[in-house]
Amino acid sequence: MTNASFKPTLPFIKAHATGNDFVVVDSVTQSIELSERDTIFLCHRQTGIGADGLLRIAKASDFGVSDAHFFMDYRNADGTIAETCGNGLRVFARVLVELGYEERGTFTIGTRAGTIRVAVSPDDVNFENISVQMGKPQSHDITEIQVQTEGGLWAGKGVFMPNPHCVVNTVDISSVGTLLQAPKVSPSTAFPQGVNVEFIEPIGDTHIAMRTFERGVGETLSCGSGACAAASVWAHDNDLKTPWTIQVDVLGGTLFIDSALDGILTLRGPASVVATGFAKGNEWQI
Amino acid sequence: MTNASFKPTLPFIKAHATGNDFVVVDSVTQSIELSERDTIFLCHRQTGIGADGLLRIAKASDFGVSDAHFFMDYRNADGTIAETCGNGLRVFARVLVELGYEERGTFTIGTRAGTIRVAVSPDDVNFENISVQMGKPQSHDITEIQVQTEGGLWAGKGVFMPNPHCVVNTVDISSVGTLLQAPKVSPSTAFPQGVNVEFIEPIGDTHIAMRTFERGVGETLSCGSGACAAASVWAHDNDLKTPWTIQVDVLGGTLFIDSALDGILTLRGPASVVATGFAKGNEWQI
Repeated sequence: MTNASFKPTLPFIKAHATGNDFVVVDSVTQSIELSERDTIFLCHRQTGIGADGLLRIAKASDFGVSDAHFFMDYRNADGTIAETCGNGLRVFARVLVELGYEERGTFTIGTRAGTIRVAVSPDDVNFENISVQMGKPQSHDITEIQVQTEGGLWAGKGVFMPNPHCVVNTVDISSVGTLLQAPKVSPSTAFPQGVNVEFIEPIGDTHIAMRTFERGVGETLSCGSGACAAASVWAHDNDLKTPWTIQVDVLGGTLFIDSALDGILTLRGPASVVATGFAKGNEWQI
Repeated sequence: MTNASFKPTLPFIKAHATGNDFVVVDSVTQSIELSERDTIFLCHRQTGIGADGLLRIAKASDFGVSDAHFFMDYRNADGTIAETCGNGLRVFARVLVELGYEERGTFTIGTRAGTIRVAVSPDDVNFENISVQMGKPQSHDITEIQVQTEGGLWAGKGVFMPNPHCVVNTVDISSVGTLLQAPKVSPSTAFPQGVNVEFIEPIGDTHIAMRTFERGVGETLSCGSGACAAASVWAHDNDLKTPWTIQVDVLGGTLFIDSALDGILTLRGPASVVATGFAKGNEWQI
């Protein structure tokens, strides 16, 4: 069996970071432009390769970015443009190192939300501990937030990372129910653009379990900014002093959130490459 | 970018037939044994490649089958062994032809449900009209079957292909509701092993639209045996005389069901190859 049989010609990598999965396309050695329709095709679970989103590796200079070598051109599975993604950045950092585009150590990646610092340690042979600087959490002004799920009515805390999150403390995260339907967050004025909801459960002093419901998607295996929001609420509620590290067990694996003295959060965790190959074209041209 | 970067070494093909998708692994040129855990890994949507099932191409002689060259070793995404699958057979037939294992024309494929006749016409350059012999539908003895959905209560007709189906006539298939939850079929004694439910809507004299809810899975883009069951109910209700052909529009594309004079049904439709590549191993060994 050879790849030549079917003549699919778009090189791709399928990878995931704690269950958040991506199709990665390298547009550095040969320029590849992907339309909205291409993205939808590649990310479709049944009729394409299937992924939460598409990460195109572009030269930073093509996006007018001078403080990074490469730019993460990130698209959602529905073809729309997205700013950035903590889990996606771990995958992106690993791929840059494996392709020989960046050396192990600390480097920067351009995104639509600004240039982000990442680190892939020389010791981290299996890419289990890639870190991404995520910024500082900001608490919501509205403090009386309620979240209705199948399992009952809960108190929520609003945190911006800067995308909107609502963190719910529980004794047992299974008690919130199936999450087949979106949790209902009130007052509706609290998050006019919608909100991601994180349910957390204590495991230890600096160790929590988390389930996440992403707006417009549903329950997902992992959410990097959600883990940061959850850790910041846990640290606040438990009077942790910076610097601290909190382990967050998500359905798709284990994440660590580090807070620096100044409160800036770093997301750490693994990135896995599942497959490499060639995809059939839809509209794209090399 | 080369495939060598990450050293994934299991060759695979990702393909679909009207939205029913499969990872295909060739175990002919080099013997590949896949464990239940390998199958679960490869079929996982986020942390693997993602598919409804896995099709391993094996030598028919390895399964004691003498009336076919190759055997479709079919596994469900949960790692369990499955007997056969009409949409899977179209994908399998295409791949056998593209790999040069079978010549275009009519040939046979061994399955756990017996040896099945398929046809890939020399004229069908784009593999849009692959046919699979599906057998004869058998009506259920129980004629008073009711199906409860979000949209209301419906009358159902039981058909075995030989797997169990319950076909519901509607004026508009959207009126049954979301199908996020399994339709409730009663009496519960009618299908002790569970049942797939097909909702059909008239488009023309020999043309219907169909939605399908597969037991244990949910609403899917296509179901080959379900399309056969639906067409047989439509033909019966509309007094069609054999031979007949009925077009069935499913969410994932278009299928044609042909009935021969003797009532044996053939499923016809496309099969698409989406990607070829190399997957990271889990437990498997070459």
